[in-house]
Formats: sequence, structure tokens, C-alpha cells
Amino acid sequence: MQNRKLRMGMVGGGEGAFIGNVHRMAANLDGQIELVCGAFSSDPEKSKRSGRALFLETDRCYSTYQEMFTKEQALDENERMDFVSIVTPNHLHFDIAKMALEHGFHVICDKPATFTLAEAQILKTIIANNECLYGLTHTYTGYPMVKHARHLVEQGKLGKIVKVVAQYSQGWLAASADTNNKQALWRLDPTQAGVSCCMGDIGVHAANLMEYVSGQYITDICADLNAMVEGRALDDDGTVLTKFNDGAKGILTASQISVGNENGLAISVYGENAGLSWRQEEPNTLWVKYNDKPAEMVRTAVGDLSEECMLATRTPAGHPEGYLEAFANLYSRFAQQIRTYPNELENLESIPGIDEAIRGMAFIENAVNASQSDVKWHPFKIN
Amino acid sequence: MQNRKLRMGMVGGGEGAFIGNVHRMAANLDGQIELVCGAFSSDPEKSKRSGRALFLETDRCYSTYQEMFTKEQALDENERMDFVSIVTPNHLHFDIAKMALEHGFHVICDKPATFTLAEAQILKTIIANNECLYGLTHTYTGYPMVKHARHLVEQGKLGKIVKVVAQYSQGWLAASADTNNKQALWRLDPTQAGVSCCMGDIGVHAANLMEYVSGQYITDICADLNAMVEGRALDDDGTVLTKFNDGAKGILTASQISVGNENGLAISVYGENAGLSWRQEEPNTLWVKYNDKPAEMVRTAVGDLSEECMLATRTPAGHPEGYLEAFANLYSRFAQQIRTYPNELENLESIPGIDEAIRGMAFIENAVNASQSDVKWHPFKIN
Amino acid sequence: MQNRKLRMGMVGGGEGAFIGNVHRMAANLDGQIELVCGAFSSDPEKSKRSGRALFLETDRCYSTYQEMFTKEQALDENERMDFVSIVTPNHLHFDIAKMALEHGFHVICDKPATFTLAEAQILKTIIANNECLYGLTHTYTGYPMVKHARHLVEQGKLGKIVKVVAQYSQGWLAASADTNNKQALWRLDPTQAGVSCCMGDIGVHAANLMEYVSGQYITDICADLNAMVEGRALDDDGTVLTKFNDGAKGILTASQISVGNENGLAISVYGENAGLSWRQEEPNTLWVKYNDKPAEMVRTAVGDLSEECMLATRTPAGHPEGYLEAFANLYSRFAQQIRTYPNELENLESIPGIDEAIRGMAFIENAVNASQSDVKWHPFKIN
Amino acid sequence: MQNRKLRMGMVGGGEGAFIGNVHRMAANLDGQIELVCGAFSSDPEKSKRSGRALFLETDRCYSTYQEMFTKEQALDENERMDFVSIVTPNHLHFDIAKMALEHGFHVICDKPATFTLAEAQILKTIIANNECLYGLTHTYTGYPMVKHARHLVEQGKLGKIVKVVAQYSQGWLAASADTNNKQALWRLDPTQAGVSCCMGDIGVHAANLMEYVSGQYITDICADLNAMVEGRALDDDGTVLTKFNDGAKGILTASQISVGNENGLAISVYGENAGLSWRQEEPNTLWVKYNDKPAEMVRTAVGDLSEECMLATRTPAGHPEGYLEAFANLYSRFAQQIRTYPNELENLESIPGIDEAIRGMAFIENAVNASQSDVKWHPFKIN
Repeated sequence: MQNRKLRMGMVGGGEGAFIGNVHRMAANLDGQIELVCGAFSSDPEKSKRSGRALFLETDRCYSTYQEMFTKEQALDENERMDFVSIVTPNHLHFDIAKMALEHGFHVICDKPATFTLAEAQILKTIIANNECLYGLTHTYTGYPMVKHARHLVEQGKLGKIVKVVAQYSQGWLAASADTNNKQALWRLDPTQAGVSCCMGDIGVHAANLMEYVSGQYITDICADLNAMVEGRALDDDGTVLTKFNDGAKGILTASQISVGNENGLAISVYGENAGLSWRQEEPNTLWVKYNDKPAEMVRTAVGDLSEECMLATRTPAGHPEGYLEAFANLYSRFAQQIRTYPNELENLESIPGIDEAIRGMAFIENAVNASQSDVKWHPFKIN
Repeated sequence: MQNRKLRMGMVGGGEGAFIGNVHRMAANLDGQIELVCGAFSSDPEKSKRSGRALFLETDRCYSTYQEMFTKEQALDENERMDFVSIVTPNHLHFDIAKMALEHGFHVICDKPATFTLAEAQILKTIIANNECLYGLTHTYTGYPMVKHARHLVEQGKLGKIVKVVAQYSQGWLAASADTNNKQALWRLDPTQAGVSCCMGDIGVHAANLMEYVSGQYITDICADLNAMVEGRALDDDGTVLTKFNDGAKGILTASQISVGNENGLAISVYGENAGLSWRQEEPNTLWVKYNDKPAEMVRTAVGDLSEECMLATRTPAGHPEGYLEAFANLYSRFAQQIRTYPNELENLESIPGIDEAIRGMAFIENAVNASQSDVKWHPFKIN
Repeated sequence: MQNRKLRMGMVGGGEGAFIGNVHRMAANLDGQIELVCGAFSSDPEKSKRSGRALFLETDRCYSTYQEMFTKEQALDENERMDFVSIVTPNHLHFDIAKMALEHGFHVICDKPATFTLAEAQILKTIIANNECLYGLTHTYTGYPMVKHARHLVEQGKLGKIVKVVAQYSQGWLAASADTNNKQALWRLDPTQAGVSCCMGDIGVHAANLMEYVSGQYITDICADLNAMVEGRALDDDGTVLTKFNDGAKGILTASQISVGNENGLAISVYGENAGLSWRQEEPNTLWVKYNDKPAEMVRTAVGDLSEECMLATRTPAGHPEGYLEAFANLYSRFAQQIRTYPNELENLESIPGIDEAIRGMAFIENAVNASQSDVKWHPFKIN
Repeated sequence: MQNRKLRMGMVGGGEGAFIGNVHRMAANLDGQIELVCGAFSSDPEKSKRSGRALFLETDRCYSTYQEMFTKEQALDENERMDFVSIVTPNHLHFDIAKMALEHGFHVICDKPATFTLAEAQILKTIIANNECLYGLTHTYTGYPMVKHARHLVEQGKLGKIVKVVAQYSQGWLAASADTNNKQALWRLDPTQAGVSCCMGDIGVHAANLMEYVSGQYITDICADLNAMVEGRALDDDGTVLTKFNDGAKGILTASQISVGNENGLAISVYGENAGLSWRQEEPNTLWVKYNDKPAEMVRTAVGDLSEECMLATRTPAGHPEGYLEAFANLYSRFAQQIRTYPNELENLESIPGIDEAIRGMAFIENAVNASQSDVKWHPFKIN
């Protein structure tokens, strides 16, 4: 496996899909992975057409994911796919991941991991039983400056952490927006998206980032989720206040009705001695701020950066890397995990996995439940 | 009064004070007001010394505010001060304002208006009984771009307002900061500052700005105030979620322990059709944002702006005006109110007055009470 | 003089003028100076009307500057003005300054100092003969961060200076702009503005800033001035390349036809070890940049700053000061110079004076001459 | 060719090279191209090792480019490479491109195209004689916002163009920098880089961008190139003033010794009615500026954009694309050109080709010659 590209299959991501193409570009970028097969749509014809447009061999453009896992398992190991990328709507993630794992394929899956927290818990057992790798594409952890931010906190550069503030602000589901498109429709449909739209789609990224960068865990929450546009069954906006295990407080705001905001994810972490701030839309800049001396503008590829940060960087200073590169960092690291498997990576992070998946699903369900309560604070329950 | 400068007295603001000098510069800028007397310190010697350093006549550097009001009242009206500026710590505001009003002097006062909501309610009656003007220096309403933001909302350019988000983030009271100075000590002392430090000092500005720009009123709040630095009797950080009278939701975050933040006041207002954002540290820029076309960077003195905005502007485009100019706008407008008195200004805003003072004190007390409760939402009580 | 405000007279700056009001606000801000008299317009009626609107006594609203200097000189020294502020169009500066100095009044003058370099040379002699102070309002040297930038260069923090880059870019004289107003008309008229519009009005500020911050002097120039709008007798745009005395190179670009630019003055200075950058439209931020570590965002009132920088600051961090405060720094320092006179200030900078005035006039004339030549480089001549 | 990936060979770009890997990632991203062979180094062992690390078949890791072109030409057309990517130092470009074209392979080449202008002229003939495509990777033309900027100018939204200003500012060759690395050494060596370092490496990008966005051509130049670091044989900094064919003026500044600047390419174009500005380090933002209304912040994937802009965009608004995506846009478009060949693309731009290559080489040689002259202005010679 060391002297060849890894072979990837894909479920979902046919013609007209957005995130499937993102996953493919991310997998392509570093030349470590080749797409060899797929079940790209629940419509067999569309699946074939999509596969052929991607230059796949016709007999590896499958009609269903079930067919794909069965037939790929039967192929010679010199040809068989190594892992599957799951990029369907949320409600299908669990069944597909389950079958893939049970057929011996590593799984990398778009978030949220499953439809319910209970499914995520079960998935953990399935992973353990089938000795496969599982990765969850919390894209934003793939940015070099996010990795460096985490490193600075770990190294104690900020002092004891007291405050973690994350915003994720978008406007595309505002009342005045056209929401009669595929992307909007499934996210606002409880049968496809689950118990939450905004928190499930983007809030969960912000929660993951808060824990990833701060190195702390949410222990209690106070939540206020809103369906600001009349008639919606699911939230399109909300705030979650948090307590963390080591005494810090947090504020997470997520919105899809904040007109004019694009993909406004941002995080600030404050310690007793320094603070840091990062914005996804200007991802190559990390601010480190002090009370008594000038703020430092840390930039990708400039100066003395952490190893994980440098490994996540492809170009010299001032040649901006973006969202696809962050995504590609997850795929490349997952490829390293597969190549090393069953050994673990030495001195390198794995990408987010089933534990982050469970915490993410727990975040969504806890936020929805807390929002429906008249009581202010609720313990963050994971079981 | 039309062919002379208005004559101002001052209480507080002696040597070493910060805000007193700010008020004086604000009063000086436009050449409409001259400082003629003061009781600058509770220490009579210091008061005299301060007054003489300001080039006042010795006999108008008073030992106490009581002496000042009595003696000024006795002066000929060609010499007597017209109004008093109160810039002492919070706990003294009420008594000074009361006596000034009862001696027939108009009052302009630093915020918060009083020590308690009850005092503010009483003050309203005193003002009514004494037929004087009362102004409260909510400085940030003096910025041209804040006025224009309010105008855009009023004109319906954003559509129905759905979300109002304000942050006021500072770092100067962080655990690692030196808080052994006059400014920090009185703000953290319940006997001088009142029931709140952070919400009383800066949160109340943010709340005022939310209502001023959105044109809506807070009707319910959920609050979580924190004393993040151990041993403090008052909050140094906090979040207040709000409901507004017309259905919008709000998020107000205020912090004095967010290391590296200077005077980070910012507001965003989202309507169904457009959003706007403004940051105090870059005050001459107002963003108006859309989902389907480029955001507009509205700039002081560029293009078609509202009349209140233009009246609040002194220099051409690109010649930045700042905090002192915003402050001076309050003083100049208050001077206009005095010159016009007892008539009201035509077609022009008055500066914030006793009603805003009451809402501000109510905000502080409601936030403190709601924070101490296990219940999530509380009606915003003003009586 | 120590226990009273300084008394200022003004020539120019009547109704409708822009810069006169700026000078008055700058003089007012710190409460050190009071306006006592003026000859505000060549129209005696307008002069009186302007003076009365400024609350001056009627008998000190003069019909001409000649009358003013004569009558003020005759007043008792307890009443007589101490200095005059000259804010007329360029072509009148010299005669007014000359008469003021010869009547024993200190002079502070808007730039450019005179109509020609020859006049500026003569003025130097007159100043010396009359033992008065002369100050020139190169406003941008009044910004705290400009002072700190100069300090960093002086301290050697950048290493040997190799490159100095200044832009001054405006759009208000573009072809599509309305130039049928007083401000535009006199600047484009050779009989009022002199040999240059763009270089004389704004280029000279940029040149002054390059020398002020870098501590170096222009020794050679290559110039290309343009009248980009057809039919203009004077330049509205141009570039001047420079050599400096210590081996650095410079680029100065100035434009009044760059549509959409407001008052875009900016400077970058590069040394062998570090670089710095400052922009007038965001004046409280100074960037110090390195190749091998994060750039530092130096901010007004944050951290360890030079004494001149701190003395030029009135408010705490994050309370933005702007153009008027920078201007006021010149007036306040000039007031200090007058109070100390005939002694010089100890350990403090004087504001720009006749030497800067001469270099400024030389810059304008050298640039115009070099631009008309087919030869690339020309020595910078000052005699 | 429509139902398969295009097959790419590469010359240069072995272990330790920077730009070779960039070209490979750019070619990989969209899944349209596969690398099938290469001569990655002048050291045959290193070439093999590099190729195997890229998962190539051993027999297609060639020792020399000559071997590669000969052997690939002999392969069956179902296997043979379609085009070659040339990523060696400048002095080798011509010979490699010539041989590739003469063996019937399309060529995509890093810039500058050749070592001399004369070579570029000859190359044009070779291309014509061999009926192959030739593409030059002026990366910055691949950015969506650069394409939209060009579109706005073409559509007349700015009015008649009067001024074009480009900066390209880097710090990595400053006196204090470590220049004892491969990237620095060959660029400063006249035998490998040609007659210019700074203008040849980065100035030529800026010149290309000026012409690409403005739609105008340089007709005259005035140049001042500097070797600011002692002992250098080639320029590391410089300014070129330009005249354009339709009356506009231009300023191009390029520097590699401006400490703290990363890859600071920026362009502003001013017309009579509006201006636009773009910075490579924040590539998803394009400013369109007016005198009399708010500037518009045009953003990738927001609102009504030109077709070329949208075709160059892969992700929704707020998911930043960067340098590699811009580069990939060149590769993907070149792949389309090959697939369509010998027909031309309909309604779509081709990537920069031999005409831009010739203008680029002419820019370098004209700038060097003009810099050595005492005369200010020189006609831009292309023959």
C-alpha cells in the first residue's frame, strides 16, 4: 500500500451535489488517493452518469451502496477500494457506515456523523468490532492556524483558559432568501436533517472547534434555539452558553438567518495572560493578543510554528490556502492513518473520529433539549 | 444666550481623573461652551488646584458641589453657569444631579445615571418638577455612523428586524492585569459602582446601543454574569440574551477579562432583507450587507447620508473622527437643547435623557437579578 | 502667560471655509488656547459676520489682516493676541506671515508655507530678524503612531533604512467629480495655488512624512506629474522617485483622480531587519513587520510606547483619536513653545517650522521641474 | 480523450523543489489530469526517486527530458502523455519546450517563458509550426476576482481607464534574510535567472496583471531597478512607470527586500467613474469604489458575477479559495483547451500563451534597459 495511491469509493455526491465534489477535490489534491468507485445517487442511472463523468470504469459505478460494498469486497485486493467516503444527507450516514465497516472498509464521513446520538453510540461499537478506521470531516480542524491555536493553548501560552467564544453566522436561510433548493430543503426537513437544522449543520462545527482549540470539554449548557422564519419545524438560529470542565465559560452563537454573512465561523479563546482569535474567512491569520504589548499577527508559513501547523501547509507565506486545503488535510491525514494501520500514527494527530462524532451528536441533542426547557443550565449528557 | 458661549460647571474630574478630561475636551471642541467653574474633587485643595490648572478664576474653584450650586445661583445671570457636567463615580451622581436641578441648573451626567434604578425613577420626577434639561452621555450614540445605522433601520432598509447582536469586550480587568489603580478599584467596589461592574460600566452602553439602533425595546432577558477573577464581589464578564418588543432576538456579551481587547464595542443588526455591522474601534465605517449583492462599506462623509449623520460630522471623507468627536456631538447637541429651551429642538434628536437613564439602570438590575435565578427567561421590569 | 489661555487671532477661515474651522477646533480641544480676534475674509462684512458667529467681540472682528495686526499690536498686553493662525489660500500666506512677524506675533500657518520657494527663503530671514516662532501645520506628524514610527526608526529597530514608500491617494478631483466648488477651484488655479495642484496640496505632506519618519533627506528625484483630466493647467496626479542621503530609495505617489479614495495617505519604511506601515485612515494602528516572526500591531495607548507618542495621546486604548486630535497636537505643542519662548522646549519636539516649510516648497518646485525634463534623475535643489 | 483523464508529464519538480509540487497539486485538484511520467531532476537517480514517490511506474520515471519525449512519443496513444508541464529554472525552459513541441506534445510552462526575449520570439514560430498548444502559468490571472475585475473594466463599469497601479512586494531577499537556499540562489544568479531577478520573478506577474485587468497595453516605460543588497548582480527591487496605449498611466513597484511582506501582489485600476482594488493575499475580495456612494465589497460566489468568474469558483460564498485553486484554474482550462483542440474554446478565455510570454520577456528586457539609461521615458520594444 506504500507504493500506490489509496483507492477510495464514494456514497452520495452525484450530479448537482455540493459537498461530494468538495470531498473529491480534497481527496485529489495531494495525489495520495484515487477515486475508483461510487454509488453516487439513489437513482441508479444518475449514479452511473455521475461516475462516468468522473472517468470511473463503468462496472464500478454502482446502483446502490449495498451493491458497491458487496462487489468491492469480492474484488482482488490489488483492485478493491481501501475506504469509503460518505457524503449523503444525514439520515443515511449510519446505515451506510455500518455496512461499510462490516464489510471491512475504513470510513470517512461528512458530519454530523449520524441522525441521532443513539446511532453514534452504536456506531462506536461497530467500529470496535470490525477493526476499521473511522474519520469525521470536521473541516475546520484542518486549517493550519487552527492547529497552531490549539498548540498555543496546549503550551500554556495563554495561561489558564477562562473564556471561549465561537460564532458561526450565515445568512442563506433568511426569510428573504430563496430556500427552494436542494441544499436548503433537506436541512430544514426533520426527516432528513434530524432534530436540528442550524445547530446540526453549523453549530456542531463551532462546538467541535471550541473543544478542539481550548482542549476543554463542555460540561453544562444553556440554550436558546430559534426558528426565526415563520413556519419552520427546525431552528435556523440559536445561542448556547457553556461551562467547561476546567472552569471556563463559553458562548456559541450560530445563525443561518443573519443576512449578508457568508460562512462566518470565528473563534476567540481567552486565557489569563493572552487571547487568540481566528476567522475562517481569513484563515491564514491567527491573532495572539495581550493587554500590555502589541498583538501578534501569526501567519501561515511565517516564523516559528508548531509541527502540526507546518505539516498542514503546502505553500510559502502569502500564497493563501483555503477551505479545500483544510479539507484535503483531513483526507491526507486519514490516508496516513490507513497506511499505518493497524498501528497508530506516531506523534501526529488523527483526524476527528467516533468520539468527536458522539460529542457532536450529543451537542445537538443537548442543545435542542435545553432550549425547550424553562430551566437555565443543564448538564451536558452524553449517554 | 445666542451670542455667547454657554457656561459650564463641573463636578468631579480633578487631577488624575480620566473621564472628566474627556468631558472637558468634548465641551471645548466646537467652541460653543466654556468651562467657568467647578468642584473637581472632594478634597478642597485638590479642587482648587485642578481648577486653576484649567485657567479658572480662583473664586470659582469651589470646595464642594453644594457650595458651587449655592454660590453660582447667587451670581448675576450674565456670569452664572448655565449647566453642570457630573463626572464623579456612580454613587454620587444622584445627589449632585438632584441639587443642581433644584437650583435651576441643567444637568449633563456620565453614565450610569444613578446608583440604583429607584434613584433614577425619583430623578425623573425631580427633573419634571424643576423644568430643567437632563442629558446622559451614552457616548456611542454620538458617532455619525451609529446615527446612520439607526436611520437605515428606521427607513426600513433592512426589512423587519430579527436579530440584534452586541459585543463589548475589554481585557483590562483580566486576572493578569494590574487592577490596583483608581479606575479599576472603584468599578469593582459595590459601594461605589453599585450592583454590577461589567454590566454597569460597559454592558449598559451595549444595551443602549441595541435599542438605539434597532428602534426596539428589550422585553425579556436571560442572563449569565460571571466574576471570572476569583474573589471579586461584582461581575467582570457576562452574557444577556434578549427578546425585543417586535419579535427580534438579541445577544449582548460584555467582558472586561478578554485579554487583548481594548474597547471592543460592536453591533450587528439583521433584518429580513439586509444586515448592518459597526465597530467602535473603526467608527467611520458602517457595513450594510446583503445575501445577493456586494456588501456596501458606508463611510463617514461619503455619499448620501442621513441628516443626523451629516450634522455629526466635522471633516471631509477620510479624515477620521473618533471618540472625542462622538462625545463632543453630545455636548454640542445638549448646548443646542439649552439654547432652544424651553422649546424643543425641531427635527433633531435630543441626546439620551432620563428615560434612557431609567432603562439603563433597569437593564443593570434586571441582568443581575436574572443571572441569580435558575429560571431561563425573565420579563424586563422597569418599575 | 502661564496662568491663562493663549490668545489666538486668525486670518482666513470665514463662513464656508473648511480648513479654518479645522484649525479652530484643533486650537479649542485642549483648553489651552482661546480665539480672540480675526480677519476671516477679504470681504469685511463677511469677516464681521463670521467673527460674531464665533462669539468674538465685535471690535475684534477686523476688516483686513492689516487692520488686525496694527490694532492688536496697539492693545494692552493683557488683552492682545499672542499669535496668529493663517488659513487663507496659498498665495496670501507670505504677505500675512511677514506682516504678523514684523508686528511681533508668532505665526502658525497652513501648508504649503508660501507661494514659491523664494518666498519661503525670505520668510526664514524675517523670522530670524523678528524673534518670533513660526509653525507649519503638517498635520500628519501630529499622529501618535507617526511619532512612534519615527521613534522606532531612530532607535534602530528597523536596521539601516533601505526603502521608503508613501502614497497619498484621493479621488475628489476625478473627471467625473464636481469640481465647481471653492475647494477645487482655487487648488486648480495657478494664480492661487502656485506651480502645482496635487504635489502642492498633498504630495508635499507625503514628502514631509517620508523625511519625518525615516529621518533621512531627499537628495535626488525623478518625477512624472500628470494632468489626467483634460484642460487642467496643473497636475492632479503624479509619481516622484527619490534617493535619500543615506542610500535608501523612495517612491512617492500622489493622486487626486483615483476615484473612490478618500484621504489615502500611507507610508511604509523598510530597514534591513524590519519594516513598518501606517495608514492615515486607520491612524491608531502601526504595523511593525518581520520576515521571521509575526507582525506586531502597535496600537495607540497599548504597551510600551515612546514618550512623544504618549504625550500625543488623550484617551485610553480603543477610544479612537483621529485627524482633529492630530491637528490639536500641533496647536498644543505650539502653545507650549510659545509659553516657553524665548527658551526652547526641553526634550520635546517642536512642530514643523520654517526649515520644513522650505523643504516643502523645494519639493514642489523640484518635482515640477524634474517632471518637465527628459532626464531621469535630478539633484534636489534647495537654493 | 473525452472519457478519460488527460495524461501529464513533468520536467523538473523533483524532491525539494517548490513550484513543481504546486503544479502537481493544481493539476490534481479537479480530477481532470493524471501525472503519468516525468524527468524530475537533472540527476537521474533523484528523478527516479521523485517519480516513485509520486506513485509513477518505474519505467516512466525518466533520466532526462530528452529520453522522456522520445520514449513517450513511441508509446501507444492510449498510454502516451498528452502534454508536458515545465517547472525547471528559467534558463532551461526554452530547450525543453522546443523539444516537447517538436515531438508533438502540448506545453504548459512556468514563467518567465524563456531566458531571453529572442527565445520567446523563436518559440512562437516553433509553436505555430508544430500545431501544439502552449500555456504560461501566470497564476494570478486564475483568481475568480481577477477575472471579474477584468470583466468590469471590459463592460465599461469604471469608465475610461486613467490609472493602473500594481505592487508586488516581498521581503524574503532582504539583507537580513537567509538567502543561502536553492530558491534564492538560482534567482540571483544571472546564468540561471537571466537579466533580472526581481522584475523577472515577480515584476513580470504584476505587468501581466496590469495588462490583463485593464485591457490596455504598455507602450512606454521609465524604470529604476535597484540591487539594494550589496554585491548582487541582479535587481532585488524596482519601480517601472508606464504609459498605456489608450492614455492611462501606470505605476509598477516590485520588491523582494521589503521586510515583512509575504507575497504582496496588489492591483488598483482607476477609471473616470469608478476604481477597483484587489490584493492577492485576500483574493476573494474585490473592491469597487466610487466617489459619491459606498464602496462595494465584491466577494467570490456572492451576487451577480461574470461567467468567467463563476467558472473559476468551486465553493460557496465564505469558503475561501486560494492560490492553489487559482493555479488549478489554469490547469483545468488548459485541459479544456486540449480536449477541444484543434478547435478553439467557444466563449471562454484561453490561459496566457505565447503572446503573453513574449510581452513578459519584453517587459523584463525593456525594464532592465530603461533602468540603465539616463533618459526618462523609453518606448516599449517588443522586437
